[in-house]
Amino acid sequence: MSSGKHLAKGSAKPVLPDDGVLRLYSMRFCPYAQRAHLVLNAKKVDYHTVFINLTEKPEWLVEVSPLLKVPALQVVAEKGQPSLIESLIIAEYLDEKYPQNPLLPKDALKRAQDKILLERFNGITNAFMKILLQNTGLDDFWTALDIFEQELIKRGTRFFGGDKPGFVDYMIWPWLERLPVIEYVLKDNYNFDEKRFPKVAQLITLLKEDEAVKGFYATPEQHQEFWRTRKAGNASYDLLA
Amino acid sequence: MSSGKHLAKGSAKPVLPDDGVLRLYSMRFCPYAQRAHLVLNAKKVDYHTVFINLTEKPEWLVEVSPLLKVPALQVVAEKGQPSLIESLIIAEYLDEKYPQNPLLPKDALKRAQDKILLERFNGITNAFMKILLQNTGLDDFWTALDIFEQELIKRGTRFFGGDKPGFVDYMIWPWLERLPVIEYVLKDNYNFDEKRFPKVAQLITLLKEDEAVKGFYATPEQHQEFWRTRKAGNASYDLLA
Repeated sequence: MSSGKHLAKGSAKPVLPDDGVLRLYSMRFCPYAQRAHLVLNAKKVDYHTVFINLTEKPEWLVEVSPLLKVPALQVVAEKGQPSLIESLIIAEYLDEKYPQNPLLPKDALKRAQDKILLERFNGITNAFMKILLQNTGLDDFWTALDIFEQELIKRGTRFFGGDKPGFVDYMIWPWLERLPVIEYVLKDNYNFDEKRFPKVAQLITLLKEDEAVKGFYATPEQHQEFWRTRKAGNASYDLLA
Repeated sequence: MSSGKHLAKGSAKPVLPDDGVLRLYSMRFCPYAQRAHLVLNAKKVDYHTVFINLTEKPEWLVEVSPLLKVPALQVVAEKGQPSLIESLIIAEYLDEKYPQNPLLPKDALKRAQDKILLERFNGITNAFMKILLQNTGLDDFWTALDIFEQELIKRGTRFFGGDKPGFVDYMIWPWLERLPVIEYVLKDNYNFDEKRFPKVAQLITLLKEDEAVKGFYATPEQHQEFWRTRKAGNASYDLLA
């Protein structure tokens, strides 16, 4: 495990034990990287974390993540120690490779439907970045979230995964955890309406108590502080280190 | 099966036999829809095709494809006759549901690597549309194609799928079949270099002889004519009907 410090340009490549344990290249406040942490936690799979300073990337990052992206999951036990990228692909790989606590449904149709739902979540991630970077309003964000409220109603379950968190729940959680960042940016214009989103509000409450989520959680204040420093051009990567 | 005619606004919803057979909503010249045809053909799965005029969409399309997209695959044998969208999700669903002639590798790591490769294919699809719509040069296109040439060399096989076409081969084929459209747009500036892309050139030759590909093939002249009419604002959807 990492000390939580983010390695930057000029840093030495970390020497990790030759123990065959997965290595996750991550950034503490990246929602995409968080997806990988959540799945690893949910499956209680052991892994080493190497946190990366994304402003000044270490020179050796290219060796483990050719496109210089996080998350990157290095599967050191496999021949050639290959790395995987793309958070959804990493998450699905982990779900296939480690069958304990299965996250995606077994049924092919239901699996496909969960993946389509996650495609539609792009509406939320896009609206989220627009709000943060261009101070746009919340309309698009709430409209995209309606889809998820309706889907929870349709499924008739507390979690997208049924009576426990599943693939969709963990894949969308990082943005739900960051709703306070929108509040920080929009101030009084932030208006999460529990009457419009009762199921999503309940999901947020429930997921905050989930062990996998608690294992990689940051408070509203921490997310807001990270965003403040990032926006100011001196991202406080090591805030939680 | 369809007559090949594309149904437009004002058309009656087609009455298909109540036979439990999959229904694919498609457009004859859409490369994403072609992916679904290729997988269905490769697996010799029976299906009905309903071709859609994408300029003037039929009013009833929303019932089977809520986002009005093609391809949409309606699984009429399942409860509620649900539809799937997103070409890669449809293709993977079909590969899981119909195990004959498996297209994705069985190994979780290799599956993930194939999916990452397809993420990188977005570099090609994006460059393709830029060339067609903005007459940009070919540099980005060939740079993106380099990745696929190198990967074929690395795999040491004729197809991405090994000694027969696999998932990656069928997912990228629609754009390889449309290289003549780039040639039509760029004319003398088109320069496919067989010395730079010997493996891709060989793959194109081999795939042209594949039965699944031949089952949904259009000639260079047909693709060029479709593009010419589409660009002129009167897309000739029924060119092959």
